Amino acid sequence: MAQNQPAPDATRRSERSRRAIYDAALALVVEVGYPRTTIEGIASRAGVGKQTIYRWWSSKADVLLEAFLDMAERTAAAAGQASYAFPDTGDLAADLKLVLRATVDELRDPSFEAPSRALAAEGVVDGELGRRLVTQLLEPQLQLYVDRLRSAQAAGGLRPDVDPRIALELFVSPLAQRWLQYTGPITYDYTDTLVDYALNGLAPR
Amino acid sequence: MAQNQPAPDATRRSERSRRAIYDAALALVVEVGYPRTTIEGIASRAGVGKQTIYRWWSSKADVLLEAFLDMAERTAAAAGQASYAFPDTGDLAADLKLVLRATVDELRDPSFEAPSRALAAEGVVDGELGRRLVTQLLEPQLQLYVDRLRSAQAAGGLRPDVDPRIALELFVSPLAQRWLQYTGPITYDYTDTLVDYALNGLAPR
Repeated sequence: MAQNQPAPDATRRSERSRRAIYDAALALVVEVGYPRTTIEGIASRAGVGKQTIYRWWSSKADVLLEAFLDMAERTAAAAGQASYAFPDTGDLAADLKLVLRATVDELRDPSFEAPSRALAAEGVVDGELGRRLVTQLLEPQLQLYVDRLRSAQAAGGLRPDVDPRIALELFVSPLAQRWLQYTGPITYDYTDTLVDYALNGLAPR
Repeated sequence: MAQNQPAPDATRRSERSRRAIYDAALALVVEVGYPRTTIEGIASRAGVGKQTIYRWWSSKADVLLEAFLDMAERTAAAAGQASYAFPDTGDLAADLKLVLRATVDELRDPSFEAPSRALAAEGVVDGELGRRLVTQLLEPQLQLYVDRLRSAQAAGGLRPDVDPRIALELFVSPLAQRWLQYTGPITYDYTDTLVDYALNGLAPR
């Protein structure tokens, strides 16, 4: 075995440490908020030395962003979905409604909700963190909508002059605002209605 | 003069104190965040005794919410608008675009932005505060959109089956999310596009 290839036991141990660090980071940010979450606090709670954390990540933002990506992937896997897959059945309204209903489930899942709120809240006042959340977590998901809307444009189901990156906000942003700001209930019926209004328009046809 | 009617000098003094307390509360929440803003800190910065604050308000949330309402009214007055007025020229698209452009200006105003972000961020993790922000600050503004959309329904410019309270979210929430989460630039061109997409729909006509 080559010197730089870890023994299987070492790989298992570091996989366990990594998971413990993710869990500790997500739990801490819920309990004390982002500003008071520290690398030291995460290390202590995970039962590892802080050098173990600094070997893999350079800041608490890096740890938390990876912990979120990992949680999102595990949530998607548990729901039987390949992560970052978007249905394309040819029926745009049905596909959008399906994905938005899955998002409703995710937003209402308590294990997802508390750490997501803690990170999102800090992103509102810390522009640098906010932009990282967008680039690393949110925008990759939004690009799946862009791809689906482009496919609909090619098939004639979406106006060709519509900018897909703006269009998706007509159904994604209302759900996001209701979740972030408690401006109204989050239900399947609500997201279905958003899709119908956005596709058909509010003015008489 | 009746005993319980304040002398004009006392009224002016208390008006000055009230303004000083609002300014101190807004400045403090920007500097130290909502959790570390206290009645004592506001009193000290405003140069008043904390009993002066407790005579008028029962909590820091009450002080801050009133400070925001006062700021919003002064901003509207400075812009020559009566607060809580919504144009109704008969051209729904034009009226919505005008109001959203004014909101773009407000969101980009630094004196508004920092305290608004501090309060909105806390509302994301503190559900009780979040719901008070909605009830006292946000929902009264959204109801003006509801009234304008109802007027458009009566005039035949909006589908009669559309729920105005959901419909308004198609153009208000995208702007809110771009502001809260830095998901994209905030411009007049952007809000004009949202109104066109929402009214005309994304599917071919």
